[in-house]
Amino acid sequence: LGSGKLASYIPELARADPSKFALVLRSVDGHVVRSGHAEEPFTFQSVSKVFTFCYLLSTGGDAILDQMPCEPSGDAFHSIVRLEDEHGHPRNPYINAGAIMVSDRLRGSNAKDKIDGFVDFLRALSEGERLQVDERVYASEFATGNRNRALAHYMNHYGLIDDPAMAVDTYFRQCSLTLDTARLARIGLFLANRGRDPETDHRVLTEDHNRTAVALMATCGLYDEVGRYAIRVGVPSKSGVSGPILAVVPGRMTIAAYSPELGPKGNSVAGMTALTVLSKRLRLSVFG
Amino acid sequence: LGSGKLASYIPELARADPSKFALVLRSVDGHVVRSGHAEEPFTFQSVSKVFTFCYLLSTGGDAILDQMPCEPSGDAFHSIVRLEDEHGHPRNPYINAGAIMVSDRLRGSNAKDKIDGFVDFLRALSEGERLQVDERVYASEFATGNRNRALAHYMNHYGLIDDPAMAVDTYFRQCSLTLDTARLARIGLFLANRGRDPETDHRVLTEDHNRTAVALMATCGLYDEVGRYAIRVGVPSKSGVSGPILAVVPGRMTIAAYSPELGPKGNSVAGMTALTVLSKRLRLSVFG
Amino acid sequence: LGSGKLASYIPELARADPSKFALVLRSVDGHVVRSGHAEEPFTFQSVSKVFTFCYLLSTGGDAILDQMPCEPSGDAFHSIVRLEDEHGHPRNPYINAGAIMVSDRLRGSNAKDKIDGFVDFLRALSEGERLQVDERVYASEFATGNRNRALAHYMNHYGLIDDPAMAVDTYFRQCSLTLDTARLARIGLFLANRGRDPETDHRVLTEDHNRTAVALMATCGLYDEVGRYAIRVGVPSKSGVSGPILAVVPGRMTIAAYSPELGPKGNSVAGMTALTVLSKRLRLSVFG
Amino acid sequence: LGSGKLASYIPELARADPSKFALVLRSVDGHVVRSGHAEEPFTFQSVSKVFTFCYLLSTGGDAILDQMPCEPSGDAFHSIVRLEDEHGHPRNPYINAGAIMVSDRLRGSNAKDKIDGFVDFLRALSEGERLQVDERVYASEFATGNRNRALAHYMNHYGLIDDPAMAVDTYFRQCSLTLDTARLARIGLFLANRGRDPETDHRVLTEDHNRTAVALMATCGLYDEVGRYAIRVGVPSKSGVSGPILAVVPGRMTIAAYSPELGPKGNSVAGMTALTVLSKRLRLSVFG
Repeated sequence: LGSGKLASYIPELARADPSKFALVLRSVDGHVVRSGHAEEPFTFQSVSKVFTFCYLLSTGGDAILDQMPCEPSGDAFHSIVRLEDEHGHPRNPYINAGAIMVSDRLRGSNAKDKIDGFVDFLRALSEGERLQVDERVYASEFATGNRNRALAHYMNHYGLIDDPAMAVDTYFRQCSLTLDTARLARIGLFLANRGRDPETDHRVLTEDHNRTAVALMATCGLYDEVGRYAIRVGVPSKSGVSGPILAVVPGRMTIAAYSPELGPKGNSVAGMTALTVLSKRLRLSVFG
Repeated sequence: LGSGKLASYIPELARADPSKFALVLRSVDGHVVRSGHAEEPFTFQSVSKVFTFCYLLSTGGDAILDQMPCEPSGDAFHSIVRLEDEHGHPRNPYINAGAIMVSDRLRGSNAKDKIDGFVDFLRALSEGERLQVDERVYASEFATGNRNRALAHYMNHYGLIDDPAMAVDTYFRQCSLTLDTARLARIGLFLANRGRDPETDHRVLTEDHNRTAVALMATCGLYDEVGRYAIRVGVPSKSGVSGPILAVVPGRMTIAAYSPELGPKGNSVAGMTALTVLSKRLRLSVFG
Repeated sequence: LGSGKLASYIPELARADPSKFALVLRSVDGHVVRSGHAEEPFTFQSVSKVFTFCYLLSTGGDAILDQMPCEPSGDAFHSIVRLEDEHGHPRNPYINAGAIMVSDRLRGSNAKDKIDGFVDFLRALSEGERLQVDERVYASEFATGNRNRALAHYMNHYGLIDDPAMAVDTYFRQCSLTLDTARLARIGLFLANRGRDPETDHRVLTEDHNRTAVALMATCGLYDEVGRYAIRVGVPSKSGVSGPILAVVPGRMTIAAYSPELGPKGNSVAGMTALTVLSKRLRLSVFG
Repeated sequence: LGSGKLASYIPELARADPSKFALVLRSVDGHVVRSGHAEEPFTFQSVSKVFTFCYLLSTGGDAILDQMPCEPSGDAFHSIVRLEDEHGHPRNPYINAGAIMVSDRLRGSNAKDKIDGFVDFLRALSEGERLQVDERVYASEFATGNRNRALAHYMNHYGLIDDPAMAVDTYFRQCSLTLDTARLARIGLFLANRGRDPETDHRVLTEDHNRTAVALMATCGLYDEVGRYAIRVGVPSKSGVSGPILAVVPGRMTIAAYSPELGPKGNSVAGMTALTVLSKRLRLSVFG
């Protein structure tokens, strides 16, 4: 703690309490271990990209897989450069451009409808609870989100997005949904269990789609730190600039970590450290 | 078979027999399953990058890890663009620039010495057999390797390589070493066993270094098809343009596949298909 | 004639009559030579970029010169790549990004106001005539202009544009203003006369600003064909995808050419050929 | 004076005397005006690119014009990025890659021969004097020129260069030829006189080739400051990192300026200032 910096590009995020830290393990066979401020709220941010992608796949939207190569970009998450080289096709669903394309394709005739559907999807994974949009963060995202609008218009030029304004509005709302470390470990549990929620026995995704979502976490989930993280932690994960990291240990458990101070690549410093130690101690790395 | 194309950028590679196919599984507890032309020779090509990297780590050369970010590049394996943006630092040891940096740092005062040391390293992993350089392929690499020379000089400009001519000569030789599918599955076995050769009990790499080499296969091992391959196969692997793929299933086995016809991204078509089927049937994917 | 292609990216432009050709010379001392369809209407398109830039400079907007390097980009006119590398600053006012920044800064509280002011500026250069927006072309630009919207939002992210929607709307309108070859040669005449309209004696620009506008035509006026054009024609010029080219021979004359079929770089084939011949015959090249 | 920095990337250049300044005007009708240290020696550096290009054109080597687009690159003079995008073709003969391609094609079977031919070419323009290679600068160039070697090997990969080592050696030698401001104004005089040396009446280049060389100075002659320079000075010019600028006023004169301290873009600060003042005072700008 204390060695990173709060995200500042969205002003609201700079108001987080840097002393907060939480770690929650939830196994597919029902065990839960919590430590720290497991109910400290934070906004979903980029971790939401995994769940809108899963939601889209679960509602028949897998045609999107034909329109992205599903490869790491090698660039920053908000980069527009490859869109120009690659005719508007985003590399994968976990960079901004790809996530905005996902949001564009969610069911619903306006951003609010789309988000309502997404919240319903998450509610089924979270004991009936409905996530809420943090209106201040949403207003902050909306006011500062011009680079995302540029991405959306660029993809629209190539016919890959239907409604750029609605797509980014949906994206800003999904990023502003509030949850906490305990809930994050819970809603991701199906990812560690081949697509079936082990607590409700509800099949969320087919095994193939689940593997797609998890494999993409391993190759594209931690911005331009994904390679080092694979070496150090070795568990498919997705981070967000508000400070959470969701790690999925296939067949075993989810681990959600939270601490709002970020390292130079935009990932939670304390979260990464905790996951590094835990991975080593519990031999969690999928790479041996 | 029949749906890909032989590599043509090195003329000698275009002479391979496209009807050859082999698949060898070798488990860490001593089982071997072979099918097809398991002793059909091919040159090491890019699969060698994993082993020179391991050899360098095994001889105290891990300072190299401070000089590469160990991230996927998002670009073609021979691209020079990022070197300009990133002050000569290659992204990882499995693209050409990174592999040439590795070759530059191998012990030895000339290319032949360096390769002799490397062959000794491999001999210990392969029942005493010494791999030989295919002189025709080597001559072909040497004659056509100007893009690699450009990479070497560029890194030399930034002081990251000592001797560009020796580095690329070493690199051409290592790529031209001849082995076969059976041997490939054998020499990679330590990678599936936390760095210890299970048949000789010889520790090749520390657990940390072994995890580094394997994790990098997962994020950077299949050129710009690494993301799709993670989805379809889900096993850390390294491919080469001569047609081999080495797959490492941590804790369980290696699988070596061979077929010289390549798909549009430079990976063996039949090899990838075989590994996809096998991964599904045997539930090998590390991503669930 | 007949060896190029009509612009197709804006559907309305594809309806032009490819058999039309016009060439008008207008000297600063009052001579006019017209040939061909000198009153065939076409829309202003990129040639408007020179005049909005001049208009902005004439109304005290030269602070914009501190926010662009005024260098050739080396890229296509609609490229967004350098904006990412260069913190949103467009290279020059004659590529799309720069022209949109210019439009953003024109006086007026909405796009229509801004265009009214611009039309007034042009009226003073054109014997009192008011150019009209071609509503079909405007609708076509508006409907297909998403790449330009992307540029505008990207610059807005860096605080370099105030109102992206208004800026691109203004830009689409200015591109859709209708004029003809005779009028084009007339309105550009001040550029050939150190910033003073020789027919009305009205000073349009200071000598310094005029030299800025003309020099930028020489280095940035013909998309990525500017170098070859400098060699072949050697006269500062600006082209547009509707088929016009305005050439400025300092101290002597303007030459306006028109033919809607474009070469591979987006410049009028017949227009360039006519200017090449004329430049050689009349020794117009400023490069000797 | 005093506001720039000596070039440091070649160690020998950092030893220049920053207090030296010279300005020489030489008109096509025989007038010469000299001021300052007009005989202070400096090495040719990038100004040589104009003359090797002219020399190549004069010896029948104009096939090179089909292998470069002759466009500004928009990038730094030593950039390798576009070579990758554009299959090894350099943008123009005045960036390093293009100049190295020119050097590769000069007549001669080794670097020394090529340079001897080039020196003979220059001797005819300079009252019989033979320029000499500054061996210390040459050694310095040779020792630090790895980025240039990378460019050469990259172009060789695409078959655009015959002998990379000889090409860069030639290039280093031409850059190391020693001359002074007075001589520079003299040898460039044919460029201001449509390709004919006005003092000897010797035709050096055809009018077309001469226009090519001069037009390229206007669009590509001052690195990534060419656009601003066109605005401020408006005279086709070529600069070098040792501090000279050669300006060609078509039909009238050459102006050579020298001062070794460079601005942020690599051009002589005092040289540019002198040329800016002179251009304004004498109304030299070709842009009005």
